[in-house]
Amino acid sequence: MPAYRAPVEDTLFVLNDVFKYERYNNLPGFSDASPDIVEAVLREAARMAEEVFFPLNQSGDREGCTRNDDGSVTTPKGFREAFEQYKEAGWMGLAFDPEYGGQGLPYVLHSAIGEYFSSANMAFAMYPGLTQGAMAAIREHGNDKQKQTFLPKMVEGRWTGTMNLTEPHCGTDLGLLRTKAVPQGDGSYRISGQKIFISAGEHDMSENIIHLVLARIEGAPEGTKGISLFIVPKFLVNEDGSVGERNGVTCGSIEEKMGIHANSTCVMNYDDATGYLIGEENKGLRAMFVMMNEARLGVGLQGLSISEVAYQNAVAYAKERIQGRALTGPAAPDRKADPIIVHPDVRRNLMTIRAFNEAGRAFLIWAALKSDVAHRSDNAEERELSQEMMGLLTPVIKGVLTDKGFEHAVMAQQVFGGHGYIEEHGMSQYVRDARITMIYEGANGIQALDLVGRKLPMNGGRAVQAFFKEVGEFCEENRNDESMSFFTKHLKKGLNDLQQATMWFVQNAMAKPDNAGAGSHDYMHLFGLVTLGYMWGLQAKTAQERLAAGDEARKAFLEAKLATARFFMERIMPETSAHLARISAGADSMMALPEDSF
Amino acid sequence: MPAYRAPVEDTLFVLNDVFKYERYNNLPGFSDASPDIVEAVLREAARMAEEVFFPLNQSGDREGCTRNDDGSVTTPKGFREAFEQYKEAGWMGLAFDPEYGGQGLPYVLHSAIGEYFSSANMAFAMYPGLTQGAMAAIREHGNDKQKQTFLPKMVEGRWTGTMNLTEPHCGTDLGLLRTKAVPQGDGSYRISGQKIFISAGEHDMSENIIHLVLARIEGAPEGTKGISLFIVPKFLVNEDGSVGERNGVTCGSIEEKMGIHANSTCVMNYDDATGYLIGEENKGLRAMFVMMNEARLGVGLQGLSISEVAYQNAVAYAKERIQGRALTGPAAPDRKADPIIVHPDVRRNLMTIRAFNEAGRAFLIWAALKSDVAHRSDNAEERELSQEMMGLLTPVIKGVLTDKGFEHAVMAQQVFGGHGYIEEHGMSQYVRDARITMIYEGANGIQALDLVGRKLPMNGGRAVQAFFKEVGEFCEENRNDESMSFFTKHLKKGLNDLQQATMWFVQNAMAKPDNAGAGSHDYMHLFGLVTLGYMWGLQAKTAQERLAAGDEARKAFLEAKLATARFFMERIMPETSAHLARISAGADSMMALPEDSF
Repeated sequence: MPAYRAPVEDTLFVLNDVFKYERYNNLPGFSDASPDIVEAVLREAARMAEEVFFPLNQSGDREGCTRNDDGSVTTPKGFREAFEQYKEAGWMGLAFDPEYGGQGLPYVLHSAIGEYFSSANMAFAMYPGLTQGAMAAIREHGNDKQKQTFLPKMVEGRWTGTMNLTEPHCGTDLGLLRTKAVPQGDGSYRISGQKIFISAGEHDMSENIIHLVLARIEGAPEGTKGISLFIVPKFLVNEDGSVGERNGVTCGSIEEKMGIHANSTCVMNYDDATGYLIGEENKGLRAMFVMMNEARLGVGLQGLSISEVAYQNAVAYAKERIQGRALTGPAAPDRKADPIIVHPDVRRNLMTIRAFNEAGRAFLIWAALKSDVAHRSDNAEERELSQEMMGLLTPVIKGVLTDKGFEHAVMAQQVFGGHGYIEEHGMSQYVRDARITMIYEGANGIQALDLVGRKLPMNGGRAVQAFFKEVGEFCEENRNDESMSFFTKHLKKGLNDLQQATMWFVQNAMAKPDNAGAGSHDYMHLFGLVTLGYMWGLQAKTAQERLAAGDEARKAFLEAKLATARFFMERIMPETSAHLARISAGADSMMALPEDSF
Repeated sequence: MPAYRAPVEDTLFVLNDVFKYERYNNLPGFSDASPDIVEAVLREAARMAEEVFFPLNQSGDREGCTRNDDGSVTTPKGFREAFEQYKEAGWMGLAFDPEYGGQGLPYVLHSAIGEYFSSANMAFAMYPGLTQGAMAAIREHGNDKQKQTFLPKMVEGRWTGTMNLTEPHCGTDLGLLRTKAVPQGDGSYRISGQKIFISAGEHDMSENIIHLVLARIEGAPEGTKGISLFIVPKFLVNEDGSVGERNGVTCGSIEEKMGIHANSTCVMNYDDATGYLIGEENKGLRAMFVMMNEARLGVGLQGLSISEVAYQNAVAYAKERIQGRALTGPAAPDRKADPIIVHPDVRRNLMTIRAFNEAGRAFLIWAALKSDVAHRSDNAEERELSQEMMGLLTPVIKGVLTDKGFEHAVMAQQVFGGHGYIEEHGMSQYVRDARITMIYEGANGIQALDLVGRKLPMNGGRAVQAFFKEVGEFCEENRNDESMSFFTKHLKKGLNDLQQATMWFVQNAMAKPDNAGAGSHDYMHLFGLVTLGYMWGLQAKTAQERLAAGDEARKAFLEAKLATARFFMERIMPETSAHLARISAGADSMMALPEDSF
């Protein structure tokens, strides 16, 4: 039987010790969330993740969602009730504006508990997750009436939301989309077209579903310049805010997918559905990117989440399963064999995942704090710089944490041997669920291109320079500290490789853009390694400080941090050189083969 | 709709041009298989793979196998008929001894067509595949009566075979197994116990199923020294060779797995079943290894097979799907977007898989030719050296080709974006099917340990030294050839890394065996990179020779070989340095964490 325990202790270490959470209490919402409140919230979220959502994970995967003949969709047994508990606990509005009924607590807290929820049951957590994206878009781009109509109900969790982008012939290239919007003269539009891969598109967990839909207004320019964003509620909303008549949007079918079976991924048919323009005409992509950025961080989080729950189960199995003897002689001589955790290659898998998870968690919390600053600081320059840094980090979070999250789910499955391949132990589900995170909200190839083509050159490279400076200064400040020099030496080497790769693009990609595309994937992962390495540098430093301060209660925990940091530096950081070598090879050999020769 | 075309042209290039197949015609069986016969056999196998087995792949996955209430198992629709065609074509005995009804053709031919069959339908190809392993064990270790009783029927395909090793509490560590064998005084034994994960354990495709079962004879020593191998037929065989009464072996259930749904993976219950000792008492593991080695090569082949079919489908999709524009400007200005094959990151996926597939195919053919020499040469020393080299290469083939085969199925799926995640396009199935190859017949961690712990030191390192010498001489001979120096430079760098890693083990693993275990996975992949790089060196050289000789008919094919070889050297070989760095880090950071801290 799979198991899950939310890593509250680690979240607290990163929040309080590494990033000194209390330093942020000048930001709105932070003063309402003192460290003891933060801990209480984390522990309650952990309890609900472990006791309510996790027990439905495997059964949800087995049962899946059912589309009934009338087009309604039934979610797996227990999902409705679990969602009721989610709503009642107020998780949906935890970090949302009090103006619309939210609690206004820090986004970093929302992000931290989001990890637990997705570890426990990713398919379940997607229902509220997509609602968050829709809420963000309405808050940023909706008019007052739209905000008043939709946000309070969504914050309450009575209504949920979706994002409708993809069509059968267009995924990445939204300029190709065909869904039509015809103005009705009363300010509303008639929306017609088909959208596919719509997560949580139809289900039985909320009173209404608020679809945010990209469509082209009749006569709009072709391509991405003619796309607008619309609110299309499943049920029209009466003047008094109550749910009115059914709108012309229906679920045509549920996709048969590799994983996340408990989330209803729908083909949605819009047939003269009533829609309301949100934001400006033909500027829908901009509005949509508010959702996308939120969603991309959420997807990166999913990568970490699955990696964490898969890791925990692999550790439990490795301690319990006895098979063979340690290479150094029997470790459990009284038993017929040793637990497989004694074998170096089993540990290689476990340590690799662990070293990623703990750095990935720190990475996400670091980024979430920047998001809080970007949205809540009263200093405009600070807001702007944080926003830029978030922009730079978003594709790295999405691309690296999901590529690695999947890879680690596979590694954790491998620890189970043949038992990992049968569905009973749940490891197959983690692999199948994690796989989608590399694809949706912009496939990882797109993230890499976004990083290299858009985020690097942004404002003359200001964000990336700030990043290099921060990491470089950390190395410089600590290199003469004997207890830190091992870590900073490896980190500095990785940073040098990243800086060289950046310089290589500057020199070689302007004249030949394929050189940027050909190196983008490696660059994204190189960037990820340096960021995760920096997180390990920070954690190692904090752990040494706490140990030096005599933090006896967490001695084993802090020593494990140091051991894991060491593993990361020795075993994972060396990959930066292969990435640099590949980037520097350029596009020639990649593009040489004529299309017909494939 | 997925599609598949067997790469006959490439097989012929490797066999005839690279490895000069005709040089082997002094070996028994080879003279019966002149190049034109080889080509005809390959083309007929290709036809059957494409037209008979492939169309059942997706439907077989959907339908799966059904265990009926009486314990019988029904295979998916069409499988019985397809197996009839397989039998009638004589594929089962293609390379088997004529003494038992086989055709005695080269094993290399059997291996080459095995790739096509597994690409077309891996779950189907496993039924005859396991039979081959059982046939090999009976041929090597059975007595005359056993050979006469079982082999002709198996060669005909009327009876199939299985391997029964794993029990619920023991997979890798067979010393723990509990299945009991009680002598009956008449030479036979009563076998009782439970075996799990038995591929093709029960099905409706053959008249009888010959189970090869590891069990412990009553009173035998504990551990691996007390294990014997038994033949346990599903139906006992009458004196006249006809099928007699039902034996006490039944399928208890079918495992619910992540993939290979069309293969029946059974829990097999032995309840006083009649079994016949094969080989010597308590020497069952030795006999079983004949099957295992055969099976490991077959599993490595499966890795390549899935990688190839996944690649072909990704290429087709990348040429057909239009989305976005080339970074260098519109490639198809008359269309609304360019086919995605113009994007460097899409090509990165395709070229990476291609570079692996074509080298992997050469690797398997190279190894299969060594197997032919090992079994058929009249020179004892040559046989022994080839056997040793096969021993060295087997874990590399199994471990590397399956790790990479899976990774590449994932890459190919990624090319499809969201469409790769739904079952319709078949890409999810390739990923799910490929996943098992990293696990069964010895999980890849075991392969790595076998390579480092057993195969490297074998006979004072004679095989590995011979390998280094061969690759080193190739680099030396070609380094002054201007058209080859690019390739040999990269290959030599990889070889140096491999030799350094080997030396590191010699110096650091004797006193501290964990250093060997900690580096084994990286060493296996480092070894794989050098072997695949060597295959590219050989192919590049051959391609240049053929081009210089004016082989106009294959000009595009040969030029594609050079482009792909270049890609491999520039983009994939650089990984050797990261492997070396990790190996040289040793076991300390991997083993540092106390078990309780996990």
